[in-house]
Amino acid sequence: MSKVITSRQEDYSQWYNDLVIKGSLADYSAVRGCMVIKPYGFALWEKMRDQLDKMFKDTGHVNAYFPLFIPKSFLSKEAAHVEGFAKECAVVTHYRLKKDPNGDGVIVDPEAKLEEELIIRPTSETIIWNTYKTWIQSYRDLPLLVNQWANVVRWEMRTRLFLRTAEFLWQEGHTAHATSEEAVAESVQMLNIYAEFAEKYMAMPVIKGVKTESERFAGAIETYCIEALMQDGKALQAGTSHFLGQNFAKAFDVKFSDKDNKLDYVWATSWGVSTRLVGALVMAHSDDDGLILPPRIAPIQAVIVPIYKGNEKKELLDAKAKQLEKELKDAGVSVKLDDNDNSRPGWKFAEYEMKGVPVRIAIGLRDLENNTVEVARRDTKEKKNISTDGFAASITKLLEDIQQQMYDKALAYRAQHITKTDDWNDFVKLLDEKGGFIAAHWDGTAETEEAIKEKTKATIRCIPLNNPQEAGKCILTGKPSSQRVLFARAY
Amino acid sequence: MSKVITSRQEDYSQWYNDLVIKGSLADYSAVRGCMVIKPYGFALWEKMRDQLDKMFKDTGHVNAYFPLFIPKSFLSKEAAHVEGFAKECAVVTHYRLKKDPNGDGVIVDPEAKLEEELIIRPTSETIIWNTYKTWIQSYRDLPLLVNQWANVVRWEMRTRLFLRTAEFLWQEGHTAHATSEEAVAESVQMLNIYAEFAEKYMAMPVIKGVKTESERFAGAIETYCIEALMQDGKALQAGTSHFLGQNFAKAFDVKFSDKDNKLDYVWATSWGVSTRLVGALVMAHSDDDGLILPPRIAPIQAVIVPIYKGNEKKELLDAKAKQLEKELKDAGVSVKLDDNDNSRPGWKFAEYEMKGVPVRIAIGLRDLENNTVEVARRDTKEKKNISTDGFAASITKLLEDIQQQMYDKALAYRAQHITKTDDWNDFVKLLDEKGGFIAAHWDGTAETEEAIKEKTKATIRCIPLNNPQEAGKCILTGKPSSQRVLFARAY
Repeated sequence: MSKVITSRQEDYSQWYNDLVIKGSLADYSAVRGCMVIKPYGFALWEKMRDQLDKMFKDTGHVNAYFPLFIPKSFLSKEAAHVEGFAKECAVVTHYRLKKDPNGDGVIVDPEAKLEEELIIRPTSETIIWNTYKTWIQSYRDLPLLVNQWANVVRWEMRTRLFLRTAEFLWQEGHTAHATSEEAVAESVQMLNIYAEFAEKYMAMPVIKGVKTESERFAGAIETYCIEALMQDGKALQAGTSHFLGQNFAKAFDVKFSDKDNKLDYVWATSWGVSTRLVGALVMAHSDDDGLILPPRIAPIQAVIVPIYKGNEKKELLDAKAKQLEKELKDAGVSVKLDDNDNSRPGWKFAEYEMKGVPVRIAIGLRDLENNTVEVARRDTKEKKNISTDGFAASITKLLEDIQQQMYDKALAYRAQHITKTDDWNDFVKLLDEKGGFIAAHWDGTAETEEAIKEKTKATIRCIPLNNPQEAGKCILTGKPSSQRVLFARAY
Repeated sequence: MSKVITSRQEDYSQWYNDLVIKGSLADYSAVRGCMVIKPYGFALWEKMRDQLDKMFKDTGHVNAYFPLFIPKSFLSKEAAHVEGFAKECAVVTHYRLKKDPNGDGVIVDPEAKLEEELIIRPTSETIIWNTYKTWIQSYRDLPLLVNQWANVVRWEMRTRLFLRTAEFLWQEGHTAHATSEEAVAESVQMLNIYAEFAEKYMAMPVIKGVKTESERFAGAIETYCIEALMQDGKALQAGTSHFLGQNFAKAFDVKFSDKDNKLDYVWATSWGVSTRLVGALVMAHSDDDGLILPPRIAPIQAVIVPIYKGNEKKELLDAKAKQLEKELKDAGVSVKLDDNDNSRPGWKFAEYEMKGVPVRIAIGLRDLENNTVEVARRDTKEKKNISTDGFAASITKLLEDIQQQMYDKALAYRAQHITKTDDWNDFVKLLDEKGGFIAAHWDGTAETEEAIKEKTKATIRCIPLNNPQEAGKCILTGKPSSQRVLFARAY
């Protein structure tokens, strides 16, 4: 195998890159900070997207599509928003190239300069709220529950495949409501959908909470988030849902008349998850032999590999393998039969191990006689022989078990990695040696939060929802505090 | 009704715009040439996309995603390609904004200038073939059958909703093959898939053909196309599939070693359809009262409208309507029950007529007694009462009939609008008065093609596949010709 990957212990960061590249999820591209999502990685994203899309539609949302470009002046309309997003964006200044009079190539035509520069959307609040102005007049037009699947661009200086790329794919929900209460309820509903998706489909436990003021989305009143824990003890923000108050409605002058014909500004939310989730999935579960994908998200749930001995009973073996493939397909399992006789079984085994296929089914000559197959699960690497009687039911059950056990394992890991401390030295030591979330008291000021970040590189990941109230003293300043918050180093 | 639309006869172009806007398909946006695809229009596009995606996957294609940005120098690598695409493109020159020192807004930070400008992809051959270079080494890596769903930007000067917009959504297939024969077969296969989709799903007959050299895709050896006819007699190119030969493989140095270890350049195809198809669908079928959508593509196939008389038996009526809704849902019909009692039936009828919902089902108090409903079909506006016994089967059958009859009607219209002529004056008169395709002889030169275009605004839409060979004289020059080609004015 030329595809050997770096071990987590040796170099966690390199392990992650190896997995993404050698697991055929993505490649670097010729454009700085942009990646190519390869077919296997894209199939994974499609599974995630389709499930999320279903959950959005089941809760009354519809999809739409807004322009890629945002006029520069729009960004400035919401003061906090421009502060947060204007720093890192791709700017279109011209609309034509022409032949280089001094050479072979093409140059930007200086005569084709735009009157107003266009920004490639880093997020679409501004262009969408400018549109909502024409869509919303009355309470009858509300709530407006719109989602968009799109590409966005943020000019990040340090990029990593899936986790932080200049261009990424995501969905952004943008809803408009008649009351503050409805908008808050919508933000929380979408947070819960994200959490359910992460836990039930990605087998990745998450903590639901709110961000502190300094970590809030630029333009939000409240940012709800789900935070996951990776195997190296670092946290990863996996999704956010923002209650935007009337900020964007005011910036774009979007008012509605209520039942009593009184005019008021509309209340807003926005919420999003991105291809970053693919990175989270990789880091949450995989091992030193490759990816480990949860069955509900895996593009291939089971692979069948016939073990040939030359041409001995090859036709019988192929027929049996095809029959098993059909049984699984009929049971709704996403199955691949790999009967390519140009590659050896050992090579195939390693390949599917690398790609994280949850269940591998091998069938050889002896199995033919005994009506058995050898089943290997990717997560625990356990192998056993099972009867081909009730084959599809056995495999379906096994896939469910794997899904559950992957979640349980990740949950146990997280439970071991939420640590309370009231001592600063212990806090620093925990971050350096154990990692994970540290539940500690904080005095509630942005200054202290910043000072802790400076000293330890740890940030407040969130203030958990329904957080127990408990009197204490700030871990850094000793000032009074009424609750613990979760600190961690994070992606 | 405030939503009255301009009639086709009065102003066909305005009729189209009215339909798109008042049928809630799309809106103009604040960005020149870019549109907002509204939820109903996007639902239509999703239905088209999902069906096409299934057809692509059923023929062995996989999806992937490549960067939005193309380095400027990449465009110049294929000579014909740069000629065709460099003219009209959005150019990113900077990656940061900063506060305007002289005002409130933001300005482009002159210090954040890119070393090499990035082009927003007008099509992705260059960035994809630059990537294929690393993916393809041996014949074992071929064929590579990749598709991408993406947004692209072409800086068109004159834009029209869906038909020609600066940004549009599309799919672009990019395949790589070991032989010229395989690549040609792939191009033709995809052309056939497009034609099948247009005819079976959009109920829109198309002519399959090849483009003349001057209408070919920039960088292609052969461009296959499907051409449809709109109700004003103008043609519309609905999809193209290109045999690219080894042009891009040579430009990006993509070679593979065959079974005998000999190196050769890879053979390529690319093929695409876009949101333009939504515009084609609108113009192919709709009438002066609104959209007419074919059942297989309609986001809502049937709408149920209860006719209340105050509160008389309202609960019974609602219960019956819900039961009918369930019967249709169970039969796989995409149905909407509109039991909103804030709007009157007449308003609802006009609304669903405008939106082109194929079947409207009204149920009133008398229907309750008689076990009937009133069914109105959108295409012919016929109404009849049917029994609620076998309700779902009746509606399913009706939807199939509508689909077929819409196709038949469009086919009959097209049959009446393919006219042969051998006389120049007649040719001009036909274009001005009857429209449609004119089958005429052409001497095969780009000069004559251009001269005809100058004189009549008609272009050669295609040379049909399996075109009858027939000796004749060029309609303009009188020079010898061996076959008729199809001329038309076009979108």
